[in-house]
Amino acid sequence: MKNTILVVGSVAFDNIETPFGKRDNALGGSATYFSVSASHFTKVKLVAVVGDDFTEKQHAVFKKHGVDITGLEKQPGKTFRWAGKYEKDINRAITISTELNVFETFKPKIPEQYRGIPFLFLANIDPELQYDVLSQMNKPEIVACDTMNLWIEIKKPQLLKLLKKVDILLLNDGEAKQLSGEINIIKSAEAIKKMGPKTVVIKRGEYGVICFTQSGIFASPGYPLKTICDPTGAGDSFAGGFFGYIARCGKVSDKIVRQALIYGNVMGSYNCESFSQDKLSSLTPAQINKRFNEFKKLMMF
Amino acid sequence: MKNTILVVGSVAFDNIETPFGKRDNALGGSATYFSVSASHFTKVKLVAVVGDDFTEKQHAVFKKHGVDITGLEKQPGKTFRWAGKYEKDINRAITISTELNVFETFKPKIPEQYRGIPFLFLANIDPELQYDVLSQMNKPEIVACDTMNLWIEIKKPQLLKLLKKVDILLLNDGEAKQLSGEINIIKSAEAIKKMGPKTVVIKRGEYGVICFTQSGIFASPGYPLKTICDPTGAGDSFAGGFFGYIARCGKVSDKIVRQALIYGNVMGSYNCESFSQDKLSSLTPAQINKRFNEFKKLMMF
Repeated sequence: MKNTILVVGSVAFDNIETPFGKRDNALGGSATYFSVSASHFTKVKLVAVVGDDFTEKQHAVFKKHGVDITGLEKQPGKTFRWAGKYEKDINRAITISTELNVFETFKPKIPEQYRGIPFLFLANIDPELQYDVLSQMNKPEIVACDTMNLWIEIKKPQLLKLLKKVDILLLNDGEAKQLSGEINIIKSAEAIKKMGPKTVVIKRGEYGVICFTQSGIFASPGYPLKTICDPTGAGDSFAGGFFGYIARCGKVSDKIVRQALIYGNVMGSYNCESFSQDKLSSLTPAQINKRFNEFKKLMMF
Repeated sequence: MKNTILVVGSVAFDNIETPFGKRDNALGGSATYFSVSASHFTKVKLVAVVGDDFTEKQHAVFKKHGVDITGLEKQPGKTFRWAGKYEKDINRAITISTELNVFETFKPKIPEQYRGIPFLFLANIDPELQYDVLSQMNKPEIVACDTMNLWIEIKKPQLLKLLKKVDILLLNDGEAKQLSGEINIIKSAEAIKKMGPKTVVIKRGEYGVICFTQSGIFASPGYPLKTICDPTGAGDSFAGGFFGYIARCGKVSDKIVRQALIYGNVMGSYNCESFSQDKLSSLTPAQINKRFNEFKKLMMF
């Protein structure tokens, strides 16, 4: 179980439209993007729920990457569905529709054999469910979690309760400001660290990432992409590269976190180059290392 | 004259209001911020125009930094005045009023003894004046220039004529997109390089800078500041650090440009920490090097 990640989050079907095309019934969801991305670094086990429209075709995607889906619960009904589009501002998703379907009554049950997994990633779902998952676990070594503006708005007390037990929080610029009530990024991070997480990773979209740890601040620009085909899942792919590398290393240190953030950028940027996990799914270790090294050149002075 | 910069731009009085206070009749203008910043790196000579309200008190600021103001023309009337404020979004200046005054009829005359200066910085003024200045010069080694959304909008043909003769163009994210008609940053830079400049420096405010040269791309995050007192002149201070370092080195290379961009970030960030040039003016070489080294730590992985 050493180096293994358990991820709990959503698995979905997405209908996506971007200036580069259209894709219906694309495999999506936070846990999907996270696990495919993280699988390039370490072993991943997934807990989520799908409906009876979820078939062998989708299972195959996870199997291809060795993602253990023993914990993928199947319920009668339809899988969670999201439809969205991107227009001129490719960084901003416009939600057309959200159908929770089987996700509405999802109560994650962590299989007995998963409870000792050392690296836990709570992908973006209701903080009450995230807390419930954490409670079922047997003291994971490192707990990382993601969240979103909706939960900060409607479930802040539940989120704050969870954050006390979280080591690493990932969120974006706007969410950090919303959660902390601060408009300055350093003040935001300092306020969030007081809520619990020792490490706060603030994602800045095309501008990269800034991370506040106990030993200092790390910041990197984003990887400049000439073509952004579909940014859906970029944040989860980032998290997969980031936490996947940490789990592979088996521990957290200042150096490991910095390198993990670059691997996060690498996976997030590759993800944007195709629809769904097409690119993420086809990546080789050589491609991942190539872009990691390109970051060295991009930032070298 | 080796390593010397000639800067032509505006010298102004600013009335500034920010969440941190208010300052009236602050010494401002693009050439002022640029020259004070660049003076920490090399010798600077300034050409601009002021009115008869400009006194020894203001001269003293330039003299303190060894900025040669032989070319600072005095005309009857009032100096250029700008009034602006910053509200919650400290990165966005809200112009209250602009009085061109003596600047309205400014026709820069380059003193004979300045015409052989090797490093020319055309700070943000009307591109026709920038072109006129360049025409008076005796083949400067490196020409850098800044511009703004207004000129791209109302004087694009004149700007394009100038850009054919410019080596390095500095502009911000939005201006790069406006000038190129492209929404992607790489495509913007590629389009701008076809207009003339071999090096395109795109300033991203708090997110740092991305630079496209003949040998590749460099990007850095901004220096994280806990308190932004007054961002007026940050872009010009950035340019002063950037071009000042290049002039001190006496040439352009990939390595020099990368380091120069960090010095630009250093000076731009220091500038934001006080009103007017208060901070910029009081900096020591040790403080400049300290922040340069902090960038190494910030970006190291």
